[in-house]
Amino acid sequence: MTSYFEGIAPVRFEGPETGRELAYRHYDPDETVMGRRMEDHLRFSVAWWHSFAWPGGDPFGGQTFQRPWFKDDMGAAKLKADAAFDLFAILGQPFFCFHDVDIRPEGESFADCERNLFEVVDYIGQKMEAGGPRLLWGTANLFSHRRFMAGAASNPDPEVFAWSAATVKSCMDATHRLGGENYVLWGGREGYETLLNTDLGREAEQMGAFLSKVVDYKHKIGFEGQILLEPKPQEPTKHQYDYDVATVYGFLQRFGLENEVKLNLEQGHAILAGHSFEHELALAGSLGLLGSIDMNRNDYQSGWDTDQFPDNPREVALAYYEVLRAGGFTRGGTNFDAKLRRQSLDPVDLVAAHVGAMDICARGFKAAARMYEDGVLEELRADRYAGWDAEAARTMLSTQALDEIHAAVLADDTRPEPRSGRQEILENLVSRYV
Amino acid sequence: MTSYFEGIAPVRFEGPETGRELAYRHYDPDETVMGRRMEDHLRFSVAWWHSFAWPGGDPFGGQTFQRPWFKDDMGAAKLKADAAFDLFAILGQPFFCFHDVDIRPEGESFADCERNLFEVVDYIGQKMEAGGPRLLWGTANLFSHRRFMAGAASNPDPEVFAWSAATVKSCMDATHRLGGENYVLWGGREGYETLLNTDLGREAEQMGAFLSKVVDYKHKIGFEGQILLEPKPQEPTKHQYDYDVATVYGFLQRFGLENEVKLNLEQGHAILAGHSFEHELALAGSLGLLGSIDMNRNDYQSGWDTDQFPDNPREVALAYYEVLRAGGFTRGGTNFDAKLRRQSLDPVDLVAAHVGAMDICARGFKAAARMYEDGVLEELRADRYAGWDAEAARTMLSTQALDEIHAAVLADDTRPEPRSGRQEILENLVSRYV
Amino acid sequence: MTSYFEGIAPVRFEGPETGRELAYRHYDPDETVMGRRMEDHLRFSVAWWHSFAWPGGDPFGGQTFQRPWFKDDMGAAKLKADAAFDLFAILGQPFFCFHDVDIRPEGESFADCERNLFEVVDYIGQKMEAGGPRLLWGTANLFSHRRFMAGAASNPDPEVFAWSAATVKSCMDATHRLGGENYVLWGGREGYETLLNTDLGREAEQMGAFLSKVVDYKHKIGFEGQILLEPKPQEPTKHQYDYDVATVYGFLQRFGLENEVKLNLEQGHAILAGHSFEHELALAGSLGLLGSIDMNRNDYQSGWDTDQFPDNPREVALAYYEVLRAGGFTRGGTNFDAKLRRQSLDPVDLVAAHVGAMDICARGFKAAARMYEDGVLEELRADRYAGWDAEAARTMLSTQALDEIHAAVLADDTRPEPRSGRQEILENLVSRYV
Amino acid sequence: MTSYFEGIAPVRFEGPETGRELAYRHYDPDETVMGRRMEDHLRFSVAWWHSFAWPGGDPFGGQTFQRPWFKDDMGAAKLKADAAFDLFAILGQPFFCFHDVDIRPEGESFADCERNLFEVVDYIGQKMEAGGPRLLWGTANLFSHRRFMAGAASNPDPEVFAWSAATVKSCMDATHRLGGENYVLWGGREGYETLLNTDLGREAEQMGAFLSKVVDYKHKIGFEGQILLEPKPQEPTKHQYDYDVATVYGFLQRFGLENEVKLNLEQGHAILAGHSFEHELALAGSLGLLGSIDMNRNDYQSGWDTDQFPDNPREVALAYYEVLRAGGFTRGGTNFDAKLRRQSLDPVDLVAAHVGAMDICARGFKAAARMYEDGVLEELRADRYAGWDAEAARTMLSTQALDEIHAAVLADDTRPEPRSGRQEILENLVSRYV
Repeated sequence: MTSYFEGIAPVRFEGPETGRELAYRHYDPDETVMGRRMEDHLRFSVAWWHSFAWPGGDPFGGQTFQRPWFKDDMGAAKLKADAAFDLFAILGQPFFCFHDVDIRPEGESFADCERNLFEVVDYIGQKMEAGGPRLLWGTANLFSHRRFMAGAASNPDPEVFAWSAATVKSCMDATHRLGGENYVLWGGREGYETLLNTDLGREAEQMGAFLSKVVDYKHKIGFEGQILLEPKPQEPTKHQYDYDVATVYGFLQRFGLENEVKLNLEQGHAILAGHSFEHELALAGSLGLLGSIDMNRNDYQSGWDTDQFPDNPREVALAYYEVLRAGGFTRGGTNFDAKLRRQSLDPVDLVAAHVGAMDICARGFKAAARMYEDGVLEELRADRYAGWDAEAARTMLSTQALDEIHAAVLADDTRPEPRSGRQEILENLVSRYV
Repeated sequence: MTSYFEGIAPVRFEGPETGRELAYRHYDPDETVMGRRMEDHLRFSVAWWHSFAWPGGDPFGGQTFQRPWFKDDMGAAKLKADAAFDLFAILGQPFFCFHDVDIRPEGESFADCERNLFEVVDYIGQKMEAGGPRLLWGTANLFSHRRFMAGAASNPDPEVFAWSAATVKSCMDATHRLGGENYVLWGGREGYETLLNTDLGREAEQMGAFLSKVVDYKHKIGFEGQILLEPKPQEPTKHQYDYDVATVYGFLQRFGLENEVKLNLEQGHAILAGHSFEHELALAGSLGLLGSIDMNRNDYQSGWDTDQFPDNPREVALAYYEVLRAGGFTRGGTNFDAKLRRQSLDPVDLVAAHVGAMDICARGFKAAARMYEDGVLEELRADRYAGWDAEAARTMLSTQALDEIHAAVLADDTRPEPRSGRQEILENLVSRYV
Repeated sequence: MTSYFEGIAPVRFEGPETGRELAYRHYDPDETVMGRRMEDHLRFSVAWWHSFAWPGGDPFGGQTFQRPWFKDDMGAAKLKADAAFDLFAILGQPFFCFHDVDIRPEGESFADCERNLFEVVDYIGQKMEAGGPRLLWGTANLFSHRRFMAGAASNPDPEVFAWSAATVKSCMDATHRLGGENYVLWGGREGYETLLNTDLGREAEQMGAFLSKVVDYKHKIGFEGQILLEPKPQEPTKHQYDYDVATVYGFLQRFGLENEVKLNLEQGHAILAGHSFEHELALAGSLGLLGSIDMNRNDYQSGWDTDQFPDNPREVALAYYEVLRAGGFTRGGTNFDAKLRRQSLDPVDLVAAHVGAMDICARGFKAAARMYEDGVLEELRADRYAGWDAEAARTMLSTQALDEIHAAVLADDTRPEPRSGRQEILENLVSRYV
Repeated sequence: MTSYFEGIAPVRFEGPETGRELAYRHYDPDETVMGRRMEDHLRFSVAWWHSFAWPGGDPFGGQTFQRPWFKDDMGAAKLKADAAFDLFAILGQPFFCFHDVDIRPEGESFADCERNLFEVVDYIGQKMEAGGPRLLWGTANLFSHRRFMAGAASNPDPEVFAWSAATVKSCMDATHRLGGENYVLWGGREGYETLLNTDLGREAEQMGAFLSKVVDYKHKIGFEGQILLEPKPQEPTKHQYDYDVATVYGFLQRFGLENEVKLNLEQGHAILAGHSFEHELALAGSLGLLGSIDMNRNDYQSGWDTDQFPDNPREVALAYYEVLRAGGFTRGGTNFDAKLRRQSLDPVDLVAAHVGAMDICARGFKAAARMYEDGVLEELRADRYAGWDAEAARTMLSTQALDEIHAAVLADDTRPEPRSGRQEILENLVSRYV
């Protein structure tokens, strides 16, 4: 162990009544829910970037955190990895995630960057062999360095496209080497600051070609994980192309990739796009695109991406309910793309934030599972559409033309009578579970 | 003439320096711009609903307007048509639009509604033969009556689907009979109030089937106008399915309709969806989906659909610039889906609002046309992507795999160097025109 | 009993495990919490307008509800009152609220309106004597009729000011006669649609004079209830003068009314103003202005006032925690300014919505009370500011000039060291209670 | 001259038809408008921070700009000052502004910081004596360093209060020494991230005491400039105390400072608070609080503070119209708290951004001045309230009690008749000018 988390013991399940601050009150990894261990349902993951690399800055202020590994050299990178695995040992969560730049020191050339990456990847690989979590997903940071300021795949400069493609190749190799379950692409700079200098058509073509190459490479190397896109409507850009689930669905169809690529969905990104998280999950579920989730919230009064740890059991329950309706996670999981508030300076803050978040998720998940198993919501939903199960209705939908339907309405003097949507009753029903 | 607009003379182009309140200062229908009369570029349309049927209510207050035709009988419907054509004669705009319920009295049965509709359609048809504007588009109101409260095509009750289909059939017939240039579908209730009672998959299937039937019926009756969907993200529903251009594009592809259906885009709806109007226009243009526009603005401080007449020359110019980049209007036009503020009680307010809006559009359009003809913006845009015109870049994009690109980056020691995006310079350039 | 709620029995506390839909699971009026009956803490109130007068319309659709009393005559008004007291008997809540126009038929003249008002007030008074809830507050609707379209007190027409003043006089009399605990003023039209026709200074003076007259009249008639303003930032107006707590505080000080008037705060209005509800409550508490609350939520994805029944225990708990910190309710209470979704057509929807809301409030309140009694949050808060309890710190704050402090900083070589704000730990702490 | 802006000649007024990119098309400092030189009306100021110190970062990416002075030592600070005065010479604007940290290298101790500050202040003072702009305002950065993470005046730690007070003393001295016209306080960290750890009452008291000390010190040193607060609702904090004009007005009254302190208003901050810029200006004007402005816009689709150079003539005209209604600037001016987009890498971008902004302001201002001199808007506004000029109306407002007004309404059978608010006609009127 490094000394960073000194004095903080591994966190255990102790039940809701425990008085200890750092204990799981609701998350018992071994509890069986719907025939599966809770750990295997929730598949928690800790994110390297926010938890180990974020300095605590915001647009009006700089670093507040003082981590011993905040230097840009190989020694610091390994110390950071050591501290990360210390936190993992404390939390006991089954997965983690990373970007290339989170784990490696920066290099001058592409070759330097890549060499640094694989040196740390091997170091992490050794730590993984010694026990500890597995890799939920790897990804490439194609947004922080100034070379990406105008996009990665969508950049007006083909050299940036090339650099990005080469980087994703390295990161897919690294993810594959570490046994990753998924590979994620978040297009933070794939978008624009002003339409005045942007060719939307051209940039879409570039992005389509890029993603096709990623899918091809996955098959070439035999990587069996999911390729996941992560939608977000804006920030850092004014407009980001992978705006939301519906937008990405259109994009995937356009390039024939809707059966090759799934989605990593984040509550905060849903909120920024004007949706509830459960909307994005339900839509992805209905389109067969739900891959994995980032369970971090945005502040409803802030217009930017606050990436906070979840704290609201009802919201979390409604989210997991949609995950369950979509069949639960296969290779995906619950990642916290969440950062401490920048005033939360102490090592214990980092531990407590994860413990609280895992507990909120466990509460929400168990409520969702009970609701799902009881099946009352689904019965009421099916009942509402029951009219469509009639033969005549199905025939109308599938085969009748407008004028045939028109003739029938006239002939039958159809006068539809509205039925209550029962929203408040359904909300009360949910309240019994959460 | 009815007496409603008594004392208000037809509005003429008088140039920017005129002192008369009700004059066109910028809109000269006969002025030639880019080789075409301005009237034929802009194709202005007045909307029956807001201009003649809206009572001035809002969620906290009722009717403020006192129009002599505010009764629900055939006499009032014809008086309303008379007043409408009086306004058209004053404004001299070339088009108008309507929903079925704007022009006809309500009926008990579907047959009654339809009979009423065609009686007024014939009445309007006679007035059109006597001169006056043509029909830009017709549409069906499938959202106001309580039978539509849970959707039209997406309703859980097949009888509502049937009623809606029959209504669209009637309205397409009416549009066709009046020589309409387009037929529009706005799915105001195609969405949900709560996910808890909603089956997203099922409702999408219903909507796809419905739209396919509409397209089939268009071909059956030989209607040569465009079928247009009008995206909006929400209001009245919490979530509306035709959220924005990108969403509708995904929907159209899913049902194989992307070459059959185009879009009617509205500034206010773009704003509600988190986009600039020019974004929605540019995206539709790049996807070949731009059909027609509703040129009414929303208030940037209000979170609902305020449907105000346009007043901002720069914004209007940027919108028309994208219309021009997409090739200009063919069958589409510039409709004002705009309502008076509810305190604007007088007939002169209604006239002045349209005059001001047409003038703002004319100013904006002329600025856009100059900018487009000069071509400087497009040169700068093309220049930004010039690197992609190189043979090597095109080969990389179209044929190289990730590992080939990776090898090249290593071999060449590629180090991309960012170039200025020149946003402020481009904004200054626009300022020279608007 | 009328027949409207036929078959719906009075709702009783049955505990969380009951299987009956219409039962209180958490709200036991007689349970003692912090030494007081829960009924006396929460002081629930049902609102006449949304629950009995709202027709189910929205900006794109009309009436969906079909209540037998939806006519504008005295018989219907009394039937409505009968149905209201039936609902009150079912729910058993201790209070109700009304506007003048909710309970009376409209009249032609002011005298007619007033005569109608008092006839119904007397009718309601008789029903109250026979048992049933008391009056939490009365208020005047100075926003729905077209005469108020440009404001009530702030109207450019002095006749509207006069009508409004006369109306408030009547409504205060009615409230006093019925033993009301508070009198509320919501300035729905006190604001503007466009600055271009508005004199902000003049309108503020009018509003100050109006409110002063209200306070004077309260004293004149010996009304001992609280006078409450209800802030809201917009809707129906583009800008409403009583924007939020901080704005109203400035207004009250300007007219010397900060000790005469308190506030009725609503969650939905807080959200529209960019605040959390707990912010508005905490601020009002710290300024001594917290009077009463409207516990209805807005949808976080809708930009307008959705007035929904509460459903989120954590949010409700944080709100009541601030109420408790401010000393709890004296004459105020928990009103539901909440309307059914317009698809919730049935009588049982109206009952269930209130039952669910009261239960959510009871859960939230009990959590808040435990948190408050345990005192851990308050200890941590006090600890954070403990440095200010030192004599030197207090002296600096109260008496030292900038240059004296500057000299001390130089002399002491002061180097402040930040301490963790512990946000996640505090959020975890709250999670133990809710 | 440094070499940074090499090859860029001083920018001159050349009129709207010039073909040169870097020319003033509308801003002729010597043009007389309303009897005063345009330079003396607009009083343009360049901000040191964004224009010289901002590295081009955002929450997802780091530095994009490569300025030769981006080092933290005294040589770099002086090089930066040299480059700043080079830009000033190119632009010819009459004023500039700075924070302490913009101009000086960081120090370990307070004494170091202050020594560095005054060394650069003297260096700048010498440059000012050699010609160039004057100081519009100075201010202290009490938000970037980690010591301020929990506030400056409102910090829970009295040592931070002390450091902040000492810093403001230094900065007021520096401002006074350089002949500054105003001293500004922006409370970027005076607010909170979570209510759970915040004592609103205590923090308000601290802020009131702090501001009182600032006012006292101003008088003590004979500084004749205005003390200005700059409202902003949030960002970086979740909630910032100086939310908007109305909030600050309440705060100033509470501490008896409403005649000592005025406001520096920014368009972007108005937008974040849910207001139009003209609202904030008009309100400040009506309260006698308008001091100075930051004329930079926010993007209407972005939920954060984008600080862009203005580009919209109509919006700028409406803003200056309110400045003129408030009497124009005395000691205040038009500052650009605006930063380049982070892709605008080149020196010419920085010059062009200011040139474009000054031209937009000049256009807007001239339109506002014409509108103001013509007086039509003001006549129409006065006319709308003309009813209040009647003796009876004034008596009612100033002396009559509610029951007296009530009696008169009954006696007179008052029936107010609404008049058109004429919003569209007024908007058309504005369009004639802009």
